Order: sequence, then structure tokens, then C-alpha cells
Amino acid sequence: MKDLKNLLLASVAVCLGFGQAAEAETLAIVGGTIIDATGNDPIRNGVLLAEDGRITAVGRDVVVPGDARLIDARGKYLIPGLIDANLHLFLNIDSETLVKYEDRYHEIIVEAAQLTLKSGQTTVFDTWGPYAALVRARDSINSGESIGSRIYLAGNIIGFDGPLSDDFRAAAAPYFSKSFVRRTNDAWEQDVGRELMWLGPDEVHSRVHEYARSDVDFLKYGASGHSEMFFISFSQRVQAAIVAAGHAEGKTVQAHTTSIESLDMAIEAGVDIITHCDITGHVRAIPAETIQKMVDRSTACSVLPVTQARLDGLLEKNPEEGVGAELKMSRENIANLAAAGATLLLSTDAGIEHPLLVSERDDPVSVDPRTKLGEGHFNALMGLQEIGVAPMEILKMATSNPARAYRLDADIGTLTTGRIADIVILNKNPLKDAGNYRAIHTVIKAGEIVDIEALPLAPIISSIKVPEDDK
Amino acid sequence: MKDLKNLLLASVAVCLGFGQAAEAETLAIVGGTIIDATGNDPIRNGVLLAEDGRITAVGRDVVVPGDARLIDARGKYLIPGLIDANLHLFLNIDSETLVKYEDRYHEIIVEAAQLTLKSGQTTVFDTWGPYAALVRARDSINSGESIGSRIYLAGNIIGFDGPLSDDFRAAAAPYFSKSFVRRTNDAWEQDVGRELMWLGPDEVHSRVHEYARSDVDFLKYGASGHSEMFFISFSQRVQAAIVAAGHAEGKTVQAHTTSIESLDMAIEAGVDIITHCDITGHVRAIPAETIQKMVDRSTACSVLPVTQARLDGLLEKNPEEGVGAELKMSRENIANLAAAGATLLLSTDAGIEHPLLVSERDDPVSVDPRTKLGEGHFNALMGLQEIGVAPMEILKMATSNPARAYRLDADIGTLTTGRIADIVILNKNPLKDAGNYRAIHTVIKAGEIVDIEALPLAPIISSIKVPEDDK
Amino acid sequence: MKDLKNLLLASVAVCLGFGQAAEAETLAIVGGTIIDATGNDPIRNGVLLAEDGRITAVGRDVVVPGDARLIDARGKYLIPGLIDANLHLFLNIDSETLVKYEDRYHEIIVEAAQLTLKSGQTTVFDTWGPYAALVRARDSINSGESIGSRIYLAGNIIGFDGPLSDDFRAAAAPYFSKSFVRRTNDAWEQDVGRELMWLGPDEVHSRVHEYARSDVDFLKYGASGHSEMFFISFSQRVQAAIVAAGHAEGKTVQAHTTSIESLDMAIEAGVDIITHCDITGHVRAIPAETIQKMVDRSTACSVLPVTQARLDGLLEKNPEEGVGAELKMSRENIANLAAAGATLLLSTDAGIEHPLLVSERDDPVSVDPRTKLGEGHFNALMGLQEIGVAPMEILKMATSNPARAYRLDADIGTLTTGRIADIVILNKNPLKDAGNYRAIHTVIKAGEIVDIEALPLAPIISSIKVPEDDK
Amino acid sequence: MKDLKNLLLASVAVCLGFGQAAEAETLAIVGGTIIDATGNDPIRNGVLLAEDGRITAVGRDVVVPGDARLIDARGKYLIPGLIDANLHLFLNIDSETLVKYEDRYHEIIVEAAQLTLKSGQTTVFDTWGPYAALVRARDSINSGESIGSRIYLAGNIIGFDGPLSDDFRAAAAPYFSKSFVRRTNDAWEQDVGRELMWLGPDEVHSRVHEYARSDVDFLKYGASGHSEMFFISFSQRVQAAIVAAGHAEGKTVQAHTTSIESLDMAIEAGVDIITHCDITGHVRAIPAETIQKMVDRSTACSVLPVTQARLDGLLEKNPEEGVGAELKMSRENIANLAAAGATLLLSTDAGIEHPLLVSERDDPVSVDPRTKLGEGHFNALMGLQEIGVAPMEILKMATSNPARAYRLDADIGTLTTGRIADIVILNKNPLKDAGNYRAIHTVIKAGEIVDIEALPLAPIISSIKVPEDDK
Repeated sequence: MKDLKNLLLASVAVCLGFGQAAEAETLAIVGGTIIDATGNDPIRNGVLLAEDGRITAVGRDVVVPGDARLIDARGKYLIPGLIDANLHLFLNIDSETLVKYEDRYHEIIVEAAQLTLKSGQTTVFDTWGPYAALVRARDSINSGESIGSRIYLAGNIIGFDGPLSDDFRAAAAPYFSKSFVRRTNDAWEQDVGRELMWLGPDEVHSRVHEYARSDVDFLKYGASGHSEMFFISFSQRVQAAIVAAGHAEGKTVQAHTTSIESLDMAIEAGVDIITHCDITGHVRAIPAETIQKMVDRSTACSVLPVTQARLDGLLEKNPEEGVGAELKMSRENIANLAAAGATLLLSTDAGIEHPLLVSERDDPVSVDPRTKLGEGHFNALMGLQEIGVAPMEILKMATSNPARAYRLDADIGTLTTGRIADIVILNKNPLKDAGNYRAIHTVIKAGEIVDIEALPLAPIISSIKVPEDDK
Repeated sequence: MKDLKNLLLASVAVCLGFGQAAEAETLAIVGGTIIDATGNDPIRNGVLLAEDGRITAVGRDVVVPGDARLIDARGKYLIPGLIDANLHLFLNIDSETLVKYEDRYHEIIVEAAQLTLKSGQTTVFDTWGPYAALVRARDSINSGESIGSRIYLAGNIIGFDGPLSDDFRAAAAPYFSKSFVRRTNDAWEQDVGRELMWLGPDEVHSRVHEYARSDVDFLKYGASGHSEMFFISFSQRVQAAIVAAGHAEGKTVQAHTTSIESLDMAIEAGVDIITHCDITGHVRAIPAETIQKMVDRSTACSVLPVTQARLDGLLEKNPEEGVGAELKMSRENIANLAAAGATLLLSTDAGIEHPLLVSERDDPVSVDPRTKLGEGHFNALMGLQEIGVAPMEILKMATSNPARAYRLDADIGTLTTGRIADIVILNKNPLKDAGNYRAIHTVIKAGEIVDIEALPLAPIISSIKVPEDDK
Repeated sequence: MKDLKNLLLASVAVCLGFGQAAEAETLAIVGGTIIDATGNDPIRNGVLLAEDGRITAVGRDVVVPGDARLIDARGKYLIPGLIDANLHLFLNIDSETLVKYEDRYHEIIVEAAQLTLKSGQTTVFDTWGPYAALVRARDSINSGESIGSRIYLAGNIIGFDGPLSDDFRAAAAPYFSKSFVRRTNDAWEQDVGRELMWLGPDEVHSRVHEYARSDVDFLKYGASGHSEMFFISFSQRVQAAIVAAGHAEGKTVQAHTTSIESLDMAIEAGVDIITHCDITGHVRAIPAETIQKMVDRSTACSVLPVTQARLDGLLEKNPEEGVGAELKMSRENIANLAAAGATLLLSTDAGIEHPLLVSERDDPVSVDPRTKLGEGHFNALMGLQEIGVAPMEILKMATSNPARAYRLDADIGTLTTGRIADIVILNKNPLKDAGNYRAIHTVIKAGEIVDIEALPLAPIISSIKVPEDDK
Repeated sequence: MKDLKNLLLASVAVCLGFGQAAEAETLAIVGGTIIDATGNDPIRNGVLLAEDGRITAVGRDVVVPGDARLIDARGKYLIPGLIDANLHLFLNIDSETLVKYEDRYHEIIVEAAQLTLKSGQTTVFDTWGPYAALVRARDSINSGESIGSRIYLAGNIIGFDGPLSDDFRAAAAPYFSKSFVRRTNDAWEQDVGRELMWLGPDEVHSRVHEYARSDVDFLKYGASGHSEMFFISFSQRVQAAIVAAGHAEGKTVQAHTTSIESLDMAIEAGVDIITHCDITGHVRAIPAETIQKMVDRSTACSVLPVTQARLDGLLEKNPEEGVGAELKMSRENIANLAAAGATLLLSTDAGIEHPLLVSERDDPVSVDPRTKLGEGHFNALMGLQEIGVAPMEILKMATSNPARAYRLDADIGTLTTGRIADIVILNKNPLKDAGNYRAIHTVIKAGEIVDIEALPLAPIISSIKVPEDDK
């Protein structure tokens, strides 16, 4: 797909060091502007080498092996593969999908991971989903059996019950067999659901520790409720016990918070990351003291930015309360967090949108969708720019910040030597306009060029057709 | 499975007429008591010959071809293949089955037709179900591609909307996509649903006539509502138009009635059969004049008898109203109809019971189930005996009566020369005790011995397992 | 009863200025244009005399007694008191009113009858409401104890269950005591509710006959359902039995119909009046044959006309189906009925609108409300004009037609000698513009001038205030 | 206020038979066994004098004024007036009562306070109800305008929304006007409802402080949710702010808790009383450390004991979870608390049971009702005895303990000099059998003998009759 025929040997060519290694697997991206996401200035006319999936050299004066596979990046921009700190590869908890694909959740998850990879996200953090299917999909991708974004998964949100429970869609439950409802909820709950709320810190620690020993990559718990956002799920000491249980297994712990008090409690509990800390209802912004506390403790915070256009659409329906008012407050919170120097992570809460269900909504048309996988993060990046976040900070929020927050910065998040070669080559400068993140030229994951045109390979949900008479 | 090795050539053997036809396909059932269901006395030590799927001889002094395939029926009883005048091969309109098997309804229908065949019903009349899948299953059986009871089908009940409508389970509809709901309802409605109630006789005639020209075998319309049983669906003149439209295409027409007034209107409209005419609420038995009208006009009536044990169970829960009170009245109606000489047809309204859903009911234990396919008709036969219907009449209700009512008596319903060789061989005398219908020795459909042990061949619904912890 | 013996001959001019007599019993309305609603040409400069509540003379050359109470009607227009053929003085079946005013329904009914009288309706036909309270209010007005329109009442619609039943608001029932629900429903049902649908013609006749012997003025039955408009409630023969039972007691019988088939059945049953025969769904207009049948049999038909502005508002929300589409069809039906010469009666289905509940509707603003008591009939009259009904026919629909249809034309409906002196004096000519019916100068009921400014005397529902912050 | 200066010394015997004085202000109860609820041994043949509503002397050797009003208590037992630490005088939030008595809540509250007084409870703590009506009833009783138990009130439970909200009966709300729903909820919420959960500690302090300055006697907040018992309502620091706000106004603060974690948080927050601390779900008993913490901090705990018979009835329906399982755990908790020496307060959560609604329940028969006002506390006392609490402790739980916990021990709770003369004279010894608390001979409130036979004076709810056919 890329044509390097007319590659000229200029200043770069001089450096190539002709004909050393016989069996070299080296990838050489030459001539582009390298924005390594460490915060350092971009390197113009830079060279990046990768071997065995890792970056082996980055800079101007880099010797390119003669047998390297060359990519001409002149006029283009290299950034680390994008990272979504909070999404849901399987968010399809509508009745039909739950029944029809009960045994094929993992296929939908792979489909989702291909949609994210296609849009430049080489790593995604799945913060809520069906454990077994997520593990299967993750392992399938890691083993090379399937293509897709690199997945890290939390499984259940500790303290939440499953999709057909009071936390989500209990109203649908009576229309299914009790057996199906239980089976479906169990697939999510993994014995760390609502019942934990009845227990004391020791018992919760024990239960969560057991869960932390399973095949999850990190832990997430509900510091507040899902449907009733102002309720607190766990006492301070129980939250501390959850964090301790996760850390005991060397896993980062994050908390779902939805109010200023649940946020404060989670910070105090010592979590590594707050999930969507910007969501605090519509009444009250995060107090300055709380923000300072996050800065002081280096508590990272994933956020859910939206564009003004999206916000305007929501506020038109209900300017007083509801999602619009909450996202308006979210933008204010993000601005304050960014100004205070908090560690922010870009996130979307996105999943594969079911085309038919979207088309059947009362208001199907959606400007700048936030939760549409493969699209939501582009809008989020633009939203950050509108809020006034500095261009380099925006890039870090989508790359090096989440890598560090998840303690994976030795492997991903920057274009620096030794990191996995997850690279997105853009046709335009993302630091000039956040809209340029959409101008993807090439996606490279672990040193391999991804055939993004071909993705998703076996679409299930994303290929559902809307009948003509429904349009 | 049957072993005829030691067959002695006695008085019967003399008659065999050794060695005529070379390639004779003749089946000879010898030595049994033949109850032909015409009302004639049983023939003891009789012989029944069948060739090319039809009965070629019945009697005592019948010459058995030397190369006939012999069945030793000494001590056994031959009756015509049983007929269910009203059942539903696809009654599985629970959410999970509708979603999961949307493209495989026909397989479930074949499964059902194998459960009925296994229990001695060689012919069944499906009076409500998804048209396309029923046609496919019927044709598959008729062509010999699949094994199963011979199916005659009505498709939709004219005037009824589909499974996810107000007529059935509208409450579940909001939990599915509108597209799925419409598609599912359309599969049943076939353009002859509730909207017909807005129209006059000419328009209804036109619409029903078109439906009668489709691949249905007979017509059925709702003279009263399904969920609200006391409402009348169509005016007198519209009912007459529906009957005329069906008859114009040479198809019998029956009406679903659930009250004494809807019953009277359907009789006046000239229907061939009343579906479950015995169901008239709990307030009022069918008046003598109405019964006499049915007798005078030879309007056949399918009924839904239950055993006293089943009735007692229902009445214990609610002796005043509801299903129990209605079935108590049904028994009174059946007794009165039988006494007056009305033409009664055995029916069950049965479908394949979903083992899991049954087990999850508040009161899963059911004595003498009425609507369980392959079992309901045995209980119905016993119920008729309890009510006091004469043994020969009971047999006719399950054989020759429905054949005649559906105008198929040239082909099925009796063990007489020229009829299709649908035969059930019983180990015990059904005229002595209705419980003996269960003592099935052999089922023969169109002259072929059915391997009933093997049925159903590919169980779907009936093989669903109840999890251990649900028991 | 009317005594014209002492009528003196004198020119109107002679009489003017001589209205001094002390104990004058005669009311003389002089100088106006008298439109008597018989269909005769208006009498310009006419004189109308009334004595003892009855009209004693109408014409140009009428001698006015010297001691008559004179009303100068020069430049004004006299029409018979308006009649609403179908309204509901107690339509307030919202939860709060049912609980709060359970013992005071009759007071609300009197309030309603004062709102109607205030707006020129001297007689109203209440076609559904709580029997005992209606009787009490009617008798209170008839005895002179209360002021209000003359009420004729049907009580329950035979075949309908009460306000907290499936026919109306069953969903609210679980939030009240069973005792209250039963008591409330009983107040409407009067033993002639849905349970009649289970019975045959003889039993229904007996039950209805008993009801006809009660204190109701006329009978009304449901030929079709209320919530499910396409269902038919009673068989042809049962409908005939209901009509016979009413006629046996000398009471007119009308039927609620909502489809072309229920309409046809009611006509065939011999009813005197069809209630809102113009409502036939949105699929199908009344066929010409049916209209002709009504003309031939002189079956009167009350209609529910709306203005185009009202209709446009409804169609904007849903042009395909629902109330808007039904009222669009209604207008077509009314036009066809009028063109064919059917006997049409103006009606509104109106009740006292609860100001608070109206203000809380999603769409509280309503152009030309149809069911607002004291306002709906003005809009209906305008709607008829828009449809193209001739001005004189419009007047007759609101006066002489309902009087005759209800067999009360000897007493009300025209400004002719011998009739009760129910008179509305208008400032403008109603035959010129139907909007002029609003230009009420004086309302006279049974010869008494009504102090319309004072009405309603003791407002309950109509005086409910909308809180400031709800506006 | 109490003046014992002129107390004369004289043997009891001397005084007997000298009760002739005309304007005697002194009440003398002589000859009974005085159990003063301090924990001291009962005084046999004791004398108790009261003057101006206060106890002026208690002991054996007490001089009875010659003009004292004498009560012969020989063979009887004197205990302090009983106290219910947690009940709801207006618990009638059913739809009919809310609508019908919207303006008369205070009358129902007085009725309730008479039912409690009649059954020996001279003081009650109302821990949730409509503020304005409670204040009105309390003040009416305090001023002597009405008779009834002495009321102390909390008004709303801080953090709870009103009766027609998600905390209680949101499902009924759609059946009323929005205006009524808002008005009703406001009557309870008093601006300290669920919205506080969105706020931080300073704002909550400010709001609660304002509420504490109103006419409430003490504060109560929800440490956990009402409908979803495992959720926590407020963070630790917000709970501390609530307690501080109450204490700043000199008012005791208590917390509603329903799980072991909400209990622990409330103790840590420094509340004076835990409401029903024994209710901790069915999974987990209160840990020993938590109990010890309550003992160490003297955190009082109101409990909801039931009898074994009542418990058995509940467990029969559902032994695994629900109310029965929770109350089983409650008994275990109470036993542990009592053994550890925690300060326990008797409470009932009782209100006036609506006779009709009770009779209409699926299971109307209730052994030893817990929440029936005037009856529940007798069952609770018996339940404590069954659990094994020492007789004197039981008495203190119903008298001196709540008085001290609410900081009112200078006035009530013991039969000691200087306290208000709230006295119950029993015919039998309550220390011998808790059933003897029912053997009420005389109730004296503030020195006045209550005519308990006459109570309630104007019954509203408690006089509702169950129709014959409902029984």
C-alpha cells in the first residue's frame, strides 16, 4: 500500500550504513516529524527504527540498516499508538445480542478491538465487560491468532451486578428465563457484585484478592452506584481494602466515581486512577482542594470530553439536568483539572454501537458521538482542544499518561527506545489541530503494519443493516 | 425391533396365497382386533393389508400375499392413526426462543411433529403459527425429507396480531428492536391481523380470499379476542365473508370462540369447525338451543378436555374464576355436547413445553398437563372417559371425526379400504380404558413403520436441560 | 298547560315602554330575529311570549300583554337553548378527584351543569357518569334547588366497567385500596358492566330491563370497546335485546360505536341514536350504504366535529394514526353524512377540564379544545361550518335534532308555541357565521333569565389554581 | 421548678384515709412497688408524690400531705412512662390518605399520639414524618390543647426524599398531578433530601445547620439508603459535618443505618444514637469490634426486636432472605449488643395501621405485629425477653436509656425526684414477665391521670371499618 520506490538518498540516506545484518527484521520510518509524547519537542526529519516489535532507535542521526523495511514519512507525523483508558469492547447488552451471541461474545470483542485498532488505538483498557470472553479475546490477540488492539481488562466493576440487574436493565429480566438471567449476570459479576456491599473490609479484601488473582489485568470498583449516581457503594475502609487487595497482586486499581464525595473517598482510598472523575452531577464542580489532592497524590483521572456541538445538542433537550448538564459540568471540571496540572487520561466509555438500535432511537442523529467506538476518541480529542488543553497535553492524555497511570510506561505510551513499536503515522500535524488525529496514514502495532482497510475482518454488530423502511 | 421369527402358519397362514407378486410392497398386520373408527364393531383376529401407503383390505377373510411384510398383532388392537384437531407445533414465543431460533422455526416444528408422531398422532392440525416455517416443515415431511406427523396448517388466526402484540406478549416488545418486533409479528400476521377489524365485509373478503389462495390448508379466524375473551372480533356479516372467502378456495374454515355469543355468531356464519367451543368462560354454559343448532348444522366442535385431577389442581388455586373455573365449565359443556350428539373433535392446543421455563414457574409441577405435546392428548382422552363419553365416541373424536370435519375422510381417519395406512397398534384395548391409548406398540404412517424410539431426531426445545440448582 | 287565553292584540310599538305591571307572569322578547330551528325562515322583528316557563306565542303579529316583562331584542337573534347530545358532566376520573371528592361528585356535576348553562346549553345529555350523583344533581336542578342546564342521564354505558378498570385507568388501581377501587367502579357500573358480555340475549335483556327501570332517562350501550376501539362488545342479537329492554320502558337507546362494523351492527339493532358515529378509526370512512341505512331508518347520529386548526395541531404530532388521523376521518364522515341528509346531533364528549392537569400535560396548549366544557361546543359549531354544513343545519344539530332524536321535541329544541322557553339571545347572527354562537346576550331557561355572570356558583374543579412555578 | 420545701414527714399509714382536702395539688401513689428504672432495686410498699407535674418524693418513708389526691397502688407496680425511641406517628403514606387528609395530617398525628399514650408510652420520638404537621401536633399537645404522648420530632431523615419519591413509592407518582407529588414530597423533604448527596461537607453542614435551627427536636440522617439498604448515602466527612451541624444547635443526632458498614461510618461520625442498628441485612452480623466501639463511645442504639412467633411466620415465607432473614439477624445482633453492655433503646418504627389496607394484604393475619402503634412495643418487650435480655435492662431500654440517649434524663425516664411525673401503674410485675407490661392499670402523664379508655378522642385512621365482604 505504501510506495517507497522513489526514495531519495539524502541526508538520511547517508546514514543508512549499507548492508550489515543479513536477517534483519528492522523497520525504518524515515523523514517524518516524530512526536514522542514524552513532552520533548518534536524531532523533524527524524528516523525511527524498530526491531522485534520494539523501538530500537529514535532521532535525527540514526543509522538505518541497509535491509530495513523503509517507510517514507516525509511530511508526516509519528505519534505513539493511541490509548483509550476506559472503554467497553462489549457494551451490547441489548436483549437480542445477549441472547443471540451468548456463546460468541469474544468474537464481538475482537470485532471491537479491530475497530479501535483501525482508528489508531493500539492499546485499550476495557473497564467493564464479560470476564471470560474478554480474556479469550485478549489472549487470542496477544497470541497472534487474532488481530486487534492490545487489550487490558478489568472484567467486572467490583460492586456492580450484571447487565440484567438493578444496576443496568432489570426491567428486561422478567422476559427471559431465570436461568438465562442468572447466567448472563454471572458472566459479568464474577462473585464480586453488589453482595460485597453487605460485607466488612476483611471479607471484601478476601473476595477481591481472590478476584485479583484471576486473569484480569487491573481492578476497578464502583465507589458510587451506576444507576443512582449519588449513592456511595463502599465505606472508606472497604475501599482501602479493595485497593490493598489489588496492589497485593501488583495490579493497578481504579474507581468509578460519579459525585464529588465518591471522588474524594476514592482518592483517599489510594486508587491509581479515577474513572471519569469529571462526572460529578450537574450541581457541583470538583472543589479546588480535591483537585489539588489528586495532583499531590498523582492520582490519575480518566475523563470523558465531548465537543461543544455535542453538548449543545444535549442541552437543547434538557438544559437543567441529565446527561447534557452533567457533561457541561464535565467540561468545567476538565478545564480546572488541566489548569491544576492533574494527570488526565483520555477515555470514551465507548462500545460498538448497534446500527439498528441507534436508528430506532427517538433522536437517532447524533453529532460527534461520544460512545461510538472508533469515533468517540476523535471527538474527545477535539473536545479537549475546545476546552483549551494544550496540544502536547492532549497527545499525552491519549498516549504516555495512560501508559504511566496503568504502570505500563516501560512498554507503551511513548516513541522512545525500548518501547513496543506502537506507532501511528499521521498525514497532518496533531499539535496544530486535534482534528488531525483523524488523518491516519499508517497504524503500526508492535512493529507490524496494520492493514486497517481490511478491519474489522468479521464484523457482527457493526455490519447490522438498517432496513430500508426504518430509515 | 419386532421379532416375527416364530410366526406360525395357522388359520391365518392358510390364507396367505403363496408367491404371487414379485415386487409386492404389501404390509400385512395379522391377528389383531381391528377397531376401524367408523363405529362398526371391532373385528377380532382381523387382517389389514396395505400397499403403496394405502389400506387395500381389512377383514377376517383376507388373503395375505406370500411376500408381504408381516406384523403379528395377535392380542393387540389396531386403531387409525390419532389426529389432533387443534395444536400449535410452534408455541415457543418466549423471548429467548424467538431471538435464538428466528431462522430455525421450521426445525422446531419438525421436532414437534416428531413428538406427536411418536405418541401416535399421525396427522395434526396446526391452527396458529408462523406461516413460512410451518409450510416449510409440512412440505419437508410430505416430501419425505423429514419424518413427522402429517401437518395441515392454518398459519395465522385471522384477526390476531403476532406474538409480541397486544394479543399475546406486548409487554416484552419494548425490550427488543422495533425491527425484530415487526419482523416477528409479520411472520405470524401475514396481513390478516387485527387491522382487518377496521374493515367492512367486502374488504375483509378480499384480504382473506388472497390469504386463502396461499399455501395454507384451511382457515381459522378469531370470532372473539385472545387476551380479552369476551370481546367479539368481527360482525356477523364480516364473519360470513371470511367463511365465504375460505370456501371459495375449497378450504374449511373454523373459528376461535371463547364465549356463548362468539360461539353463536360463528355457527351462524357457517363455519365448518368451532375451535374449543367448550370454552365459554365460567359464568354460563352453552345453552341447549345453541348446542342443537350445532347438531342441526353439523358444525363440528373441537374440545379441550382435562382430567379431574388436573382440574382439581387448578380449582384449588382459584375456585371462583380463571382457567380452573373455565375448564370446569368446559367439562360441563363437553358432557352436554356429547349427550346431544354433536360432532366433537379431540384437541389439545399443545406445543413443545420448554423444560426450563416450565421448571421456573411458581408452580412447576403439573398433574396431567393439557398443553404438553405428546402427552396432552392422552390426558384429554382420559378426561373424556371421566366425563362419560362412550368409548367408541372417544376414539372417533380422535380419528374419524376430525378427518370428516376437515373433509379429509377419503384419506384418513378410519381403517377402511382406500384410506392412507395410518395405523396405531396398541397393546391394550382402548375401548376398555382410555388409559390404554398410551400402550403404543407400533405406529405406522402411510404404510411405513415408524421408528418411534428414535424420535425426535434432532431435539432442540425438548432437549433443553434444567440446571441442577434450578431443580 | 300553556294558556294563551288572555293574549292582547297590540302592536309592538304600543307595548314598548309599558312594562310596568307588578306581578307580570309573561315574558316578552320583542324586536329580535327569531330563528326557531324548525328550518323555517327567521322571523325578523319578531315577538316571543313565554308564560309559566313555556312559549305561548311566536311571530310578528303578537300582542304583548301590558304587564309582560319585556326584553328588547332589537338587533339581536333568538335561538332555542343549545343542546349537547353527548357530554360527561363528571369526567374527572383522575386519582386525586376520585379520592378527594368521593362524596361530592354531585356538586361537581352541578358545577358542570352551570358551566354548560353559562355557555348557552340549556339541556345536556350526560351519556356516561356515576349514576347516583348524576341523579342527585339532575333532581336538584329539576326541583329548583340548584341552577344548571337541564340534565338527562344514561348512567353507565352498558358493557363498560368503571373508571379504575381495564376500560379506563386500570394502571392506577394498584395504588388504592381494593375497597376504594371496587366502590368507585361500582358507582359507574351499576351491574351492567363488562360481565354482561359473557351472557346470552335473554339474560342481558333481563339485566338491562332492570337497569332501564331505574332513574336513568335513556340507555346507552357499548357496541364496541372503549380502550380497544375495533372490538365488538355484543352480538347482534344481544344488541337487539338491549334495545328492546330500553324501549320496553319507553326510553331511547343509543350505542357507542367506534368502527364501521360496530356502527352497522348498532343501526341493525334498531338504536335511536349512534354516539359519535363519525369516529371510525383512520383506515376507513363510513360506506355510502351504511349512511343510507341511517337515513332510511332515521337513525340519529351524534358527531364530534373539530376545527381545522385543532386537527392540524394533532396531525402535526402524528399524521398517520391516533386521535388526529381519526378526527380527520371524522370530518370526512360528517361531510358525507350531512350531504346524505342524515340526522346529525352536535356533541362534544366534554367535561370540566382540570386546570392543573391540563397545565401539566406535555403539550398543555390546545387550540380550539374539543372536550372542554363550555367551550368545546363553540369549536364544534365552527368545525361544522368549516366542513361545509349549511348554517341552518348546524343550528338544528344543536337544538331541534337532538330534541327529536331523544323524543323530547314536544318540550325542547325549537322556538315554537308550547315548547319550554329555553332561549338564547345572541348579539350576532349565527346563520351568518358559526362564530356568532359565542356572542351570547342572554340565556333563558324555562322562561327564567339566567344570571350567567354568576355561574358557576360554587366552583370546585374549574377554580383549581395552577401554581405560579408550574406555569 | 419543683419545690419540695414543705414536704412533711409522716408515715404512710398515718396519711391513709385522710384525703379530704379540697384544692389538693399533690398526687400521692401509695402502697405499690416502685421500679424507678435507674437500675436500683424496686421499692416495695413505696410512696410517690407528684406536684405541679413533677415527682417530689419517692420512697418508703414519705409523708403524704393530708390533701393529696390518693391512688391506692397496693399490689401494683409503678414504672416510668414508657418511651418509644423510634416510631412514625404519620406513617400513612398510602395514596388515599395522602390525598384525603392532605390538610389534616396533624389530626392523624394527634390520634397516633393518643394511641401511644393509651398503651403506656408517655413520650415518643418521631424519627420521620411531615415536619409542619408534626410540629403542630406536638405544640398542640404541649400547650394542653390536645391530649397525647409527649412528642419529640426529627421531621425528615436528612438525605431522604419524600413519600412519592424513589425512596418510597415512586411508582404511584404518575397517577397524581405533578403539583400534588411535589407538594407532598416537599412536606417531608424540607430541603434536606437526596440532593444533599451531590454536595460536599461545607455545603451540607450549612444546609443541615439551617434545618437544625428550625423547630425540630433532634436530627436524623440516612447513613444508608432506604429502598436499597446496602448503599451508603454520605461520605465519612459529610456525616461528620451533619453531626457537627446538629450539635452546634444543641440537638442530638442519630443515623439510619442498615448494614455493618453504614453502622460503622455512623459511629465514627459521632452520632448520639444509631437507629435500628440491629438491622444489618441477612448476610453478616455486627462484628464484635463494632459493638465494642459503640460501647466505648457510648453510642446508643435503638433496636427493633420481634417475637419468635412473628419471626417464624416471616421465615416460613422466605427463610433465605428478605424481612424474615433480616429480623433473624437482628435478634442475633441484639443478643450480642446486650451481652456486650451496649446502650439499647426500645423502638418499633410503628405507625397507625390502616385497618382496610391491612385486611387487603395477601397475608393479612399477623402474629405479634411489630409496626402496629400501641401494640408493637408490647411485642418488642416480649421479644427482648425471649432473646434473654435481663428484665431490668428491658425496662431501662423502654425508659431511662432513651431518656439519657436523647439527653432528656433530667426530665424523663426514671421515677426519681425532680423528673416529670410520667408514670405507668401496672397490675402485674413487669420484671417477672415482659407480658405484664400489657397489664396497665393507670397512665399518668405529667402528674395527670389519663382517661385511657376515652382514647383516641377523634379517631380517623384507626376507626376505618373493613367492609363485611372484605373479611
